[in-house]
This record gives sequence, C-alpha cells and structure tokens, in this order.
Amino acid sequence: MSLRKSWVTSANSAAHPFPLNNLPYGVFSTEDEAPCCGVAIGDMILDVTAAEAAGLIDLGDEPLFDAPMWNPLMEEGPAVWTALRARLVALLEDGANERAKVEVFLVPQAEAEMHMPFQVSEFTDFYAGRHHATNVGTMFRGAENALPPNWLHLPIGYNGRASSVVVSGTDIQRPWGQLKGPNDDAPRWGPSARFDIELEMGAIVGMASAGPLSVQEADDAIFGYVLLNDWSARDIQAWEYQPLGPFQAKATATSISPWIVTKAALDPFRCETPAREVELLDHLKDCGPMLYDIDLEVGLTPDGGSESVIARTNYKEMYYSSAQQLAHHATSGCPMNVGDLLGSGTISGPERGNRGSLLELSWGGTEPLELKTGETRSFIEDGDTLVLKGAAKGKGYCLGFGDCVGTVLPALNDPFAKS
Amino acid sequence: MSLRKSWVTSANSAAHPFPLNNLPYGVFSTEDEAPCCGVAIGDMILDVTAAEAAGLIDLGDEPLFDAPMWNPLMEEGPAVWTALRARLVALLEDGANERAKVEVFLVPQAEAEMHMPFQVSEFTDFYAGRHHATNVGTMFRGAENALPPNWLHLPIGYNGRASSVVVSGTDIQRPWGQLKGPNDDAPRWGPSARFDIELEMGAIVGMASAGPLSVQEADDAIFGYVLLNDWSARDIQAWEYQPLGPFQAKATATSISPWIVTKAALDPFRCETPAREVELLDHLKDCGPMLYDIDLEVGLTPDGGSESVIARTNYKEMYYSSAQQLAHHATSGCPMNVGDLLGSGTISGPERGNRGSLLELSWGGTEPLELKTGETRSFIEDGDTLVLKGAAKGKGYCLGFGDCVGTVLPALNDPFAKS
Repeated sequence: MSLRKSWVTSANSAAHPFPLNNLPYGVFSTEDEAPCCGVAIGDMILDVTAAEAAGLIDLGDEPLFDAPMWNPLMEEGPAVWTALRARLVALLEDGANERAKVEVFLVPQAEAEMHMPFQVSEFTDFYAGRHHATNVGTMFRGAENALPPNWLHLPIGYNGRASSVVVSGTDIQRPWGQLKGPNDDAPRWGPSARFDIELEMGAIVGMASAGPLSVQEADDAIFGYVLLNDWSARDIQAWEYQPLGPFQAKATATSISPWIVTKAALDPFRCETPAREVELLDHLKDCGPMLYDIDLEVGLTPDGGSESVIARTNYKEMYYSSAQQLAHHATSGCPMNVGDLLGSGTISGPERGNRGSLLELSWGGTEPLELKTGETRSFIEDGDTLVLKGAAKGKGYCLGFGDCVGTVLPALNDPFAKS
Repeated sequence: MSLRKSWVTSANSAAHPFPLNNLPYGVFSTEDEAPCCGVAIGDMILDVTAAEAAGLIDLGDEPLFDAPMWNPLMEEGPAVWTALRARLVALLEDGANERAKVEVFLVPQAEAEMHMPFQVSEFTDFYAGRHHATNVGTMFRGAENALPPNWLHLPIGYNGRASSVVVSGTDIQRPWGQLKGPNDDAPRWGPSARFDIELEMGAIVGMASAGPLSVQEADDAIFGYVLLNDWSARDIQAWEYQPLGPFQAKATATSISPWIVTKAALDPFRCETPAREVELLDHLKDCGPMLYDIDLEVGLTPDGGSESVIARTNYKEMYYSSAQQLAHHATSGCPMNVGDLLGSGTISGPERGNRGSLLELSWGGTEPLELKTGETRSFIEDGDTLVLKGAAKGKGYCLGFGDCVGTVLPALNDPFAKS
C-alpha cells in the first residue's frame, strides 16, 4: 500500500495525517453550521451530511447522516461501511468526475469545531498491556506478585462510565474525592493530588450481538479506533478500588480523539500480538493479526510553557487485541451494542520512556520527570495540557488520528464548604 | 397515612399491592396494543398513553407518554412528577368526576404483558449492605478482615452493564465463562456451576447532574424504586474479579420488577440508616430518613415443584441509602443522567434466613438449603424459578412492587465447540 492521491492536494503529503488512505469520520460544526457528519481529507472536511442531502452519497432508503453522530452508519453493518468508503474514494480521488459537485461541500478544518463523533452506548476499559500491568503490579504488590494469576489467561476489564466520555479539546476539572494516604488515620475530603493520564486506544463496536462471539466475529464487529485518555485520580483509586475496582477515580472524564479511523483504513497496519507465555483457551486464541502498528506519544505542556514529549510507545505492545477483549466481554452472553467503546488499557512499552501514565513514568511519584521547561512532574499540575498523538506509518504516507487533548483546570472550591 | 379509596374496587383491599396510595409506573402491551405507558391500580392498568392522547392528562406542550418508557416524564423534573401524581389521584379516587371518561382506558393486568418501564442509561451496583459484606468478606478473607478498610467510610460500588438489564419474566440462560477452582492447575471454559441471585433494590435517577451532589440533592434527584436481582456467576467472579472487580460474572442479566414505585408513594415509609460505627465525612452524612421500610423475600421454585421462601429481609437493613450512594457516585464530577439505575447491593439481615444470596444462604455451598420439595440447593439449578417480592406495609394497606421473576434455563451447547 502506498499513498493514494486526492484532488484535495493538501492530502497528498507523506506526513499528512489525513490522506485519501485514511478518510476518518468525525462530527464538526462551524460558525454557520450546526454539528453534522464530516470526513477528513487533507486540511479539509467533506460535509457528508450536506453531500448526502445533495444526492452525492446514497446508501439506502433513509438518510444516514442527518443526525450528528456516526451510529446510524454503524447500524447498517459492514457491507454499507465498505460501500461508503468506496464512494468516498470515488468522490475524492485524483481525477474524480464529480469533483466540481463535491468541492462545494468542503470546509477547512481550521474553521471547524469538533464534537463527539458517536454516541457512546457503554464504556469498558481493559488492563491488557503487559508492561503497564507489570509496572503497576510491581509498585502495588511487589515484583513477584506483579501480574495477577488471571492476567495471562484473560483480558481483565471493568465497566467504565459512558457519561464521562468527552471529545478532545474539552477541559478537565481536577476532581474532589475521598482520600486516605497510607499514613493517614482516617480519610478526608479533598481535591485529587495524584491526577494522571492513561494512554490508550479505544475500539468502537459497530455491530450488536447478544451471545458469545469468537475472536474473528469480534474483530468483524469492530468499526474503528480512536485515541483514548482515561484520566485517573490515583489517590482516589488507591482508597476506593478494593474489592470492586476503580469507580470515582475514573469517572471524571475520558477523552477521545475526534476522528474515528476505520478498521478498513488500518488494515495494512495489522500485526500479531506478542508471543503467549501460556497458551490461551480456545475461545480467546489469536486467529490472525488483530493488533495494529500505530506509533503513539504523549506530550505535556505546562501553562504558558512549551511541550515536552514524555512518552513514546506503540499499540502493538498490547498483549490482547481489541477483538480478544470484545470476545471476552461477550462470553457471559453480555449484550453488546453499536457505539460501545472499549479502552485497550494503558499502552506502555519496555523502557521508561515508553510508559503511558505518569504513575509509571514517575514510578509512583518517587522519580519525578524533568520537562523541557526545567520543571518536574510527578502527576498533573493545574494548567497542564496533555496531548496524545497517534499515527500508523506506511511507505510514503501515514494515517493520523488527530490529537486527543485536554487541559486540567484547578479543582472547584469545595462544593460542600459550609458558608 | 391510611388506605385511600379508589372507584377501582379491587384496589381497596388491605393486602392489594396496588392501592390508590401506590400508583406505580410501568410499560405494558396487550394482544391489541403495542407497548405503552400504564399505571397500576388494583387489578387494572390505566393506559396513560391513551388517556393523555384523549386529553385526560395534560402536563405540557408535548406528549409525555407517546414512547413506551417513563424517561420523558422523568426529564420534566419534580414539579411535573408531583402534578402527574395529583392528576392520577383525581382521576382514580373514589367519587372522581371523570370516572366514566377514565374507565374506557382501563386494561386488566391479567391481559397485559409487561416490558422494561424505562430506558436504562447506565447501571451501577453497590455493595452497601453490612450483613452481606460481612458474610461475603468472612467467607473470602476471614472474619477479622471481613469488611474492607474503606467500607465504613464510603458506599463501595462498581459500574455494571446497562445492556444486560431485563424486565421481570425474562428467562435467564446459564452463562459460560472462564472458570478456575482453587484446586485447579489452569482455567477452563465451561458453564457456570455456581449461578446465584442477589436480592437488591434499584433506585432510578430522575434528574441529570454534572457535578458533586449533596445527599439531600441526591435524594431529590431519585425518581423511584424497583426490585432488582443481580444474577451472579460466583465461579466466574472468583477467577476474574481481582484486581478490577466483577465483570462477566455480572453481565449475563440483571432483572428488575416491572413497576416503578415512586419516591412520593414510598414517602410514609422512610426510615433512618443504622447507627454509624464511624462518623461519615460531611459530604456523605445522613440528613434525614432516606431508607425505606420495605419487607423483601425470595422464593425458589424448582421446575415442576412448589415454591420455598428461602429468605426474608427488609430494605432498612442497608448501611447506606440510595441518596448516599448517588452522592458518592457524583463526587468526582461524574455526569449522572435520567434513567441511571443504582443497585443497592445485596440486602441481607442478621440471621441465616435473612440472607439475600445463595452464596450466603448455603455459606459458599457448604451448608445446602433444604427446600419444601425435599430437594437441596447450594446454587441455582436449571429450571429453577427465582422470585423477589417486596411490600411496604402501612396501617390497613400495603404498597407492592410486583414480582421480579426469572427462570434459569440450561446453558447453551458450547458456542465454540469444534464440529
């Protein structure tokens, strides 16, 4: 696979995140236009809501893009997903017949505000990166008990909170919570002092199911991927998470990148999961390359300062693919719905510079990071802007995800202070 | 408060679950009518969708009951909740002027099939009954470590799976899952052999919020209550739940009773939480009676046999109220939505006969229960029908919830068996 040329010339650079090979799906608005569906091509967005209304895209009896979300397309299933992609390529490729008709529906990305690209039905977050699980387990339970006994046999996950998923660019307010340090006699009510990121990929379920799924069926049901930052209050988590798992520590917000990069676009970047230390049971066995070779990085910019890249890693570091996670999710007969979002779990690599959370990067706060600005960080400070970036790099082109950004605002005044 | 008389005479018996004092909200269909909103009164259902269309109920510019769910009413907020209840009383009370106009919209319950009364936005389940937590903790960690250190300071909860919530009467298929007994070398794939119930109350959030809530605000935001059975596969749970909590063990199904009993109806039955062993932090302190005196019981009927009542308890046994649970849920800024469902956690009382799960009743399978039929039970057998019942008992009347029933069907054949 090489760069496919578009008549939108900005899309034809080897370094541009949105060439014709990509065609990611988002929801945008402009000063003149309410939120509607769009496809990124080079520096522009094709307004597919308007293009469909004008008859340039016609995939069925009912309009698919008259609501500002991509769920209705997902509901149509893989044949229509494929048909849309083929139609978009035909409209946007170099030499396209209908260029003149299409051009009027292009909007500069610089003039657009991005919104949630789909309605999240439910959100599940996994814990399926081995380096992350080993790092966190070593800090909390010691190196000998780092991986829980079940870890190599199934992708551990927990249900998150769909209501807290927000699009990139949304400010994140530092949460309050119940806190108790290891040396405190009693818990107290206060703002989180160990607020953190988790660098993850999010897989979006595009087909509903109501019973167990094979790994292949699960892969078939995935519609696309986003970058995902699962903001985490480590001090709230430490006090609350036993015995039933993270709850309020992960409920303030989860940010996603604004563009859904489709499984079809990512197909050339499929790769295998790492070698298995113990054989998986049949229902979770790999049956093809279902991870993706996607370079990932995290940048931290202090208020008014310049950005430091604090971590670089790759999605292929995961131990379990999203298909394996979805297959595990459905084992009990759990109904899965269009718009379900599955977080991969934090993606860390083997070296210190590959760690996808500040908890790991600063080793629980004991080894603060040095930033370019000369400041240090153990956890996020007020005013810090965190950005996740991702790109699959082909020969002479790349597929970008669009940044996943959030700035952390100071905690509110105590919402329960007595006046 | 005493029995309020209705011209629907079946509602006027002291033992009837649905007197004029109750007026619970459900969704029903008949052979002739698609699912629509209804209010139970005696042995009848008032078709409020039809009554609104006929102009007998008029609460605003838009119809509130033209979709088969009670979410649109909840969205209107407490003033409209109160106005509807007042209007229903005026239409149904003894001597009502409009009786003749209303009578045509009554449907016998015997002819109705019940559906989910509301659309569940997200489902959260708590672990807030002290007897239950102590029993389970003793079995798993020994009597000295029964209650986790955080238990007396906050209502521990985890996010459940909204897609798995079903209405009473839905059959429940025994799940498959990854299982590993304490003496097994490796996990295996098999049907759950320790499938169980959890007797709970469910609180329905009726007002959305996007920041911390006081306990009083949380109580104000609750719309009503249902009975809730959180079906639980104990063997799947034992292997999966460390370190991130229950996941597939609780994702097969959660059943709720078909009628939402409103907070207004339950008001006379408010009661205090038990004495606090340690003082709660201010943001979780009790600020009024927010539990309810509701008698609860569990019946088990083997296939073709007769029912044994296996547990009797009361909602007032909870340590935390639903208002405290909702307040805790919102501490981090977690957005709460109309239709969020909060399970109380298993409601056990102090004696063996008060335990709300088979795990506790059979003490982990070591003390099987004897049924009336002469059979014994450690966990649920295929064909068993489990029913939860609940009633708040006033002087000369009671408020019933309608049964929460489910029959457990055998597991499917291995969905992944090689042919």
